[in-house]
Amino acid sequence: MCEANVYIEHCGKEELLLERVDKLIPHGDEIYLENIFGQRKTIAARIKELHLIDHRIVLERIDTYSK
Amino acid sequence: MCEANVYIEHCGKEELLLERVDKLIPHGDEIYLENIFGQRKTIAARIKELHLIDHRIVLERIDTYSK
Repeated sequence: MCEANVYIEHCGKEELLLERVDKLIPHGDEIYLENIFGQRKTIAARIKELHLIDHRIVLERIDTYSK
Repeated sequence: MCEANVYIEHCGKEELLLERVDKLIPHGDEIYLENIFGQRKTIAARIKELHLIDHRIVLERIDTYSK
């Protein structure tokens, strides 16, 4: 199984956003995620790093108030 | 093995940029890639989509002359 867990980092803390993600599509300031269970999320964030062997993707939240 | 092949899309065509990539880190307009063989590349691009079960990451080239 080669999907990854997606974590979101905000103020120095990381939390699990969605596990076993297959598909990730950035679109402007948003990222669309879809996992192997068909769960979908769209979040205002950017990709910080991917570590695929560790099954780990880290996103950084984009604060909409700072735009 | 859960690394992915990274393709770059430009003018509607896709070509293999680096295979078996473990680590991908966006930084400004550039993306740093590192594969399981220790090969490293940095390219002016943005992430278009990830399909992890297909071991496939597609980047879009950023044309520096259009900045």
